[in-house]
Amino acid sequence: MTIARAYLDYNASAPLLAEALEAMMSAPDRSADPSSVHQDGRAARRIVEAARRDVAALAGAKPEHVVFTSGATEAAATLLTPDWRMGRAPLRMSRLYVAASDHPCVLNGGRFDRSAFGVIGVGRDGVLDLAALDAELASHDRDAGLPLVAVHAANNETGVIQPVAKIAAVVKAHGGVLIVDAVQAAGRIPIDISNNYGDFLILSSHKIGGPKGAGAIVGLSDLMMPVPLVVGGGQEKGHRGGTENVAAIAGFGAAAREAAADLSAADGIAGRRDAVEAAILDVAPDAVIHSRQADRLCNTTFFSVPGMKAETAQIAFDLAGISLSAGSACSSGKVGPSHVLKAMGVEDDLGALRVSIGAATTKEEIERFAAALAAHVARGSRGECAA
Amino acid sequence: MTIARAYLDYNASAPLLAEALEAMMSAPDRSADPSSVHQDGRAARRIVEAARRDVAALAGAKPEHVVFTSGATEAAATLLTPDWRMGRAPLRMSRLYVAASDHPCVLNGGRFDRSAFGVIGVGRDGVLDLAALDAELASHDRDAGLPLVAVHAANNETGVIQPVAKIAAVVKAHGGVLIVDAVQAAGRIPIDISNNYGDFLILSSHKIGGPKGAGAIVGLSDLMMPVPLVVGGGQEKGHRGGTENVAAIAGFGAAAREAAADLSAADGIAGRRDAVEAAILDVAPDAVIHSRQADRLCNTTFFSVPGMKAETAQIAFDLAGISLSAGSACSSGKVGPSHVLKAMGVEDDLGALRVSIGAATTKEEIERFAAALAAHVARGSRGECAA
Repeated sequence: MTIARAYLDYNASAPLLAEALEAMMSAPDRSADPSSVHQDGRAARRIVEAARRDVAALAGAKPEHVVFTSGATEAAATLLTPDWRMGRAPLRMSRLYVAASDHPCVLNGGRFDRSAFGVIGVGRDGVLDLAALDAELASHDRDAGLPLVAVHAANNETGVIQPVAKIAAVVKAHGGVLIVDAVQAAGRIPIDISNNYGDFLILSSHKIGGPKGAGAIVGLSDLMMPVPLVVGGGQEKGHRGGTENVAAIAGFGAAAREAAADLSAADGIAGRRDAVEAAILDVAPDAVIHSRQADRLCNTTFFSVPGMKAETAQIAFDLAGISLSAGSACSSGKVGPSHVLKAMGVEDDLGALRVSIGAATTKEEIERFAAALAAHVARGSRGECAA
Repeated sequence: MTIARAYLDYNASAPLLAEALEAMMSAPDRSADPSSVHQDGRAARRIVEAARRDVAALAGAKPEHVVFTSGATEAAATLLTPDWRMGRAPLRMSRLYVAASDHPCVLNGGRFDRSAFGVIGVGRDGVLDLAALDAELASHDRDAGLPLVAVHAANNETGVIQPVAKIAAVVKAHGGVLIVDAVQAAGRIPIDISNNYGDFLILSSHKIGGPKGAGAIVGLSDLMMPVPLVVGGGQEKGHRGGTENVAAIAGFGAAAREAAADLSAADGIAGRRDAVEAAILDVAPDAVIHSRQADRLCNTTFFSVPGMKAETAQIAFDLAGISLSAGSACSSGKVGPSHVLKAMGVEDDLGALRVSIGAATTKEEIERFAAALAAHVARGSRGECAA
């Protein structure tokens, strides 16, 4: 007998929404190239453009300022470059400033040389140090080029929400350009690039219930754009070459529609998240819920239990049919100490566990999580694993 | 009443195979991240690795030498770089050599500076000028770095097949590295990287009946690799960051299995292609079938009718329910003169039409094509359009 698994790892990849699958399946059978001028091609083009409007609407942007990519990582790799263009004129971003708790795809600095980017610290609550950002930008050498700042709107591990409007004001005051990684924020909190929310957003389809294989760069305008990363047949107005992934883009559009409509579900999700945290503290009263006092996403709980090794616990949960993360899902299953907690100055030798949920998460799944945690602790795992 | 359209534009994008769709749909509902270590993540990982074996088998490669990308354009953009690594040591490719009839995603030279790449001509038959390649490589300055050569195995417009083994021998004799764009060749002619067929292949899923959104770099080994283009969480052994597009990769794998098995269908397809050409010459005896005497793919006919404007004819076919191309599908529906014919020294002021078919193309579809061509010519379109 197989028991259905409880999937509590939405921040790694959210389950595909029925609406997204339906949109993918209603892409034309023939799957023509949207650049083909015949009817089949134009039908594919219409699907791409409808999705562009849906993704733009989620972000408060104009459709013509949405560039589809293969995902958020490619979007970040495209935006994080010193070489930009203002129309046809070259424009130089001489230095990149990132947050210490940014996602690895931002922290690696894209096309910037290691020597040309600085890391801005976060406080113990995980919030970007605005004074440090201000000081860094104040000492930026404007003669060499503009400062480019890249910060996530919400953290994938802790769920901590950054004060994007305040960050945008600081960056603007110093004449810089702000890229906001809104991958985890989209669909969970309002994001509106038209309202003091940076110059460019990065979005991912599969984090909001769309399929993998689609992401977007969303701009406040397209006056200045990065020199393209993937050059090809001139698709996406020359900003991103390669035949558009029509089906995935269709699914992304549908997921964006649902995400825009689902913001009202946040209260319900937060209620279930609170149930997760109550269960943790019930089983292990000395557990630490990271960044609990900070402004956080409704769906994310990152916690450590003193003496309990996260990696071992993650395996125990997995055997009990529960999928969650020890840290963030990174490459090749490697589990290392969390760079996010380290940036916050939190000691975390044994690692932390992440429960991330969505609108479809049930009370029963949370009860199963609580029972599995209790069983793991009852097995004496805390002492054994700490030894 | 809607009449089913005849889709004769396989070289732009092949219809999705039922086997590919089935593979995509049997990817797990939960769509977990294949880097997640829990059971859901491992199930996604198994799907990716099974597809890797299928794609490797199509190309005669080892699975561990397949790097999945978002498509062939990204694969080309990744490979066409001066900056490579041999293990951890940097390795410089100082100059890129491409064929004049290469696909735009190769012709643009990727990360090479315009001043650092040369274009090798093709003969009137569309075949690469081996003597010119030999001469160019003979004068290559080895002290500056290795020569990198990128040539397509079969042309997307004319279907002309390049003598890859001979090209590989020339490149090898000069100590160069050869990248073979096998996008149009895969599934139509045997490709076997283990047998004197270059150092790296570029493959595309949607050209062989898989979904859009997946492609691959296939290496003869991974001793030397390009500095990654899309850096992220270290996926694909660090060669290509970003969460793998599990469903698209699953579909790509299924399409690769079918493509490897379907090579025996080439004779049947060639028979239908011959029927297309007989119909053209029946309607317009002075029509030119480009590269007809050259070694060509079984599925591609590129032709010009004196006095007939290709762009107008393409619209007439479209209205008659037939999807084909005027030149290749390029960005934003732009139809320009064919750079491939120009490279061959063929005068082609009014443009050429491309019919590209597959195993599913029926006799009835070809009859409809013939009738539409006859009707277009009977309308006097040749004289009018030439005027």
